[in-house]
Amino acid sequence: MGLPGKNKGAVLSKIATNNQHGENSEYFDGWKAYDKDPFHLSRNPHGIIQMGLAENQLCLDLIKDWVKENPEASICTLEGIHQFSDIANFQDYHGLKKFRQAIAHFMGKARGGRVTFDPERVVMSGGATGANETIMFCLADPGDVFLIPSPYYAAFDRDLRWRTGVEIIPVPCSSSDNFKLTVDAAEWAYKKAQESNKKVKGLILTNPSNPLGTMLDKDTLTNLVRFVTRKNIHLVVDEIYAATVFAGGDFVSVAEVVNDVDISEVNVDLIHIVYSLSKDMGLPGFRVGIVYSFNDSVVSCARKMSSFGLVSSQTQLMLASMLSDDQFVDNFLMESSRRLGIRHKVFTTGIKKADIACLTSNAGLFAWMDLRHLLRDRNSFESEIELWHIIIDRVKLNVSPGSSFRCTEPGWFRICFANMDDDTLHVALGRIQDFVSKNKNKIVEKASENDQVIQNKSAKKLKWTQTNLRLSFRRLYEDGLSSPGIMSPHSPLLRA
Amino acid sequence: MGLPGKNKGAVLSKIATNNQHGENSEYFDGWKAYDKDPFHLSRNPHGIIQMGLAENQLCLDLIKDWVKENPEASICTLEGIHQFSDIANFQDYHGLKKFRQAIAHFMGKARGGRVTFDPERVVMSGGATGANETIMFCLADPGDVFLIPSPYYAAFDRDLRWRTGVEIIPVPCSSSDNFKLTVDAAEWAYKKAQESNKKVKGLILTNPSNPLGTMLDKDTLTNLVRFVTRKNIHLVVDEIYAATVFAGGDFVSVAEVVNDVDISEVNVDLIHIVYSLSKDMGLPGFRVGIVYSFNDSVVSCARKMSSFGLVSSQTQLMLASMLSDDQFVDNFLMESSRRLGIRHKVFTTGIKKADIACLTSNAGLFAWMDLRHLLRDRNSFESEIELWHIIIDRVKLNVSPGSSFRCTEPGWFRICFANMDDDTLHVALGRIQDFVSKNKNKIVEKASENDQVIQNKSAKKLKWTQTNLRLSFRRLYEDGLSSPGIMSPHSPLLRA
Repeated sequence: MGLPGKNKGAVLSKIATNNQHGENSEYFDGWKAYDKDPFHLSRNPHGIIQMGLAENQLCLDLIKDWVKENPEASICTLEGIHQFSDIANFQDYHGLKKFRQAIAHFMGKARGGRVTFDPERVVMSGGATGANETIMFCLADPGDVFLIPSPYYAAFDRDLRWRTGVEIIPVPCSSSDNFKLTVDAAEWAYKKAQESNKKVKGLILTNPSNPLGTMLDKDTLTNLVRFVTRKNIHLVVDEIYAATVFAGGDFVSVAEVVNDVDISEVNVDLIHIVYSLSKDMGLPGFRVGIVYSFNDSVVSCARKMSSFGLVSSQTQLMLASMLSDDQFVDNFLMESSRRLGIRHKVFTTGIKKADIACLTSNAGLFAWMDLRHLLRDRNSFESEIELWHIIIDRVKLNVSPGSSFRCTEPGWFRICFANMDDDTLHVALGRIQDFVSKNKNKIVEKASENDQVIQNKSAKKLKWTQTNLRLSFRRLYEDGLSSPGIMSPHSPLLRA
Repeated sequence: MGLPGKNKGAVLSKIATNNQHGENSEYFDGWKAYDKDPFHLSRNPHGIIQMGLAENQLCLDLIKDWVKENPEASICTLEGIHQFSDIANFQDYHGLKKFRQAIAHFMGKARGGRVTFDPERVVMSGGATGANETIMFCLADPGDVFLIPSPYYAAFDRDLRWRTGVEIIPVPCSSSDNFKLTVDAAEWAYKKAQESNKKVKGLILTNPSNPLGTMLDKDTLTNLVRFVTRKNIHLVVDEIYAATVFAGGDFVSVAEVVNDVDISEVNVDLIHIVYSLSKDMGLPGFRVGIVYSFNDSVVSCARKMSSFGLVSSQTQLMLASMLSDDQFVDNFLMESSRRLGIRHKVFTTGIKKADIACLTSNAGLFAWMDLRHLLRDRNSFESEIELWHIIIDRVKLNVSPGSSFRCTEPGWFRICFANMDDDTLHVALGRIQDFVSKNKNKIVEKASENDQVIQNKSAKKLKWTQTNLRLSFRRLYEDGLSSPGIMSPHSPLLRA
């Protein structure tokens, strides 16, 4: 992009120069490495397998079948082209009425039909990325604070803070409690922020959790609703993984809690939901983000902000038809949950063969993998990054280190399992098993005795194996690391 | 949307409560009035005709024909569905490579092929609305100033200022000079802003102009490039009407000036273009906004911001095919210009029969109509709004008063002519002619003698008629006005 006339530097904004977009995180470096050597079953079978991307590819065949059977839902088919001009010109920021209705309908179904959503409160945004930024612009001024349980979605640093100037303060959750968010922890973080003279405007959380794959139980969620009401701060619940639940009972939306909790204990003006079709339907390319607020002023304000990230009218029309087809939606939700459950089981069973445990989860497109026993130094994030480089370079898997999710304990990794076909998954599992097995017997020194394994029935056996495994990894560390190719110019900062 | 538990108000952000979104302007009230009683040729022939909407509906038939002939460009047809999964999952913020290439190619063609654009500098955004906000976020901090020639696009108050905190200071342009922007005027506004201790970060202008429909000549544009280079401030040129030129020679893009001007006189790091397909192609529903910057850092930063308003991948794919079809593009651009020229001629000829003059223009989807002679008080914006109410209520046309474009002289109105079919246009012209003719003879008092008519060859005759016409309007004023229905809940804050 060389050009003449670049004789002096122009002054850009602080936002442009403050590097707070978060793309310097290792999380994104992993994608850059993948971009340079992407795995393909036949064309590049030794390439890096992308397991850092929370995509849901398991049910796209169902969507494709529906599209084939419903050509009138598209403005590009002979059956639908009569709508072309009206749709191409449609830019009302309320969105197509039938789109809003279909989204509200789908949101209810994706929450087990136990709660209904009002189409008049459905506000469009440019993906969950845009929706999360929009809700921050509505609720908080620059310098105001939102609390957020950690570990949390890596790109929240960009979505919530970068252009809004809002600060986020983590509510650290611990492996000793399976990373569960408690009101006590929220209360502690709230006090701590106040002691630093910060103005806390709210609490934001992802439920089901990314990266944990766990859900909040109804009691905890109810107590959090009471907590924000007492403090008069906002509660934003990012529910973009609502329909990825595959086990462990029903997902409880904050909308359900708002309906059920005693009226004296909730100020609904404080409750807001972020939603999207990127994860539940596996359609991130379509950029459907939703702000759903119980606060009329927020609905009105967010709708005005919609203009910065409207959903393409072409896409609105197609989804309006698809999501109002009850038979399709019911079958899709059931089948998607079933396939995710199978995939999760295949993955966790396979990885267990390599003596690796994951946090017990029942939702999401990923597992939260416990590799603490493999760290050179269990208290060091440098060791975590060191191990991550080995996984990229030797095992040829792009996974995401816990530090990129602001996890406070080194050694946890998020590994995605729904963005690939069965064959690729088996290659990935095979690589992990091979790698562990090849290095199993290289015991070079006596292991430390304080390893812990959580959530695993065969803990004793696993502990023994893991002790040995760490030793073999130590050998690997000493072999030195090749530098991963992390500077590919095409870094997709994705909603992952 | 009534709900329980609203026991106390939640505190929202300053942005949410400062009313700077601009939707309180009369400009949008006109749309609300239209929404309540929209004209339809057969179903509501006495309804309000929407002439406040800068839509381009004249060539959608050409696009429809192309879509019918190219089913493989859609992921929803039998010919294209094999791409469905890849496209549905595609969310790289660089966009599809072929989309960027096609956009760059089209941008060159829409500027007469005299300049080429680098696909690597094409950054996606959510419509021109999103693109204009994005470039502000990149270039200026809250409180910084951008100069903007007035009259200017009404929603710039929202797009440029609302969430960015950037201030805009008008560079007033005058009817005595056909509202032409001069470097002297820019220099004057720059000094004035500095005297108020404002930090001027740039100059932004729409070329061809909305609402004027005029183009900047190459000399002026070159001098403006020199001006911003001397001052070391940015120049943002919103060229979303580039392909609407129907007369008056070639449109000159700032990209052409950057190529041609002496290297010592331009700092290309200061030059940025905003583009869109909403006006030139008539596809506002597809939300294609483009930031094109000659500054590498701005390209990089704006691309990271893309994530808040990516173009739907479904739409990217279709447009990538369409815009890389040279035969289609060449024919579309030629035919669109031809049809706009005819439409403009029919409109201005028709309105002249009602003794109304417009500023001479050669681009855009609207005319800048001179109704100063009809104001009760020629120096009063209240009179302008009074007249505007008459036009809405009696003539049943929604036009946009100059004050909503921050015009400094009362009595100018923007009237759009490309968002309707021929029959509707003739109804609109008929209404204007009828109205003027019916009220022509109601002379009630002696007219003032200082009326001016610009840009009209039969000025003398027109002046006489207009004097009488104003008198008839005075009678109307005295009859009192019915209140227009301006509070329809569905207010589309459009890119118009």
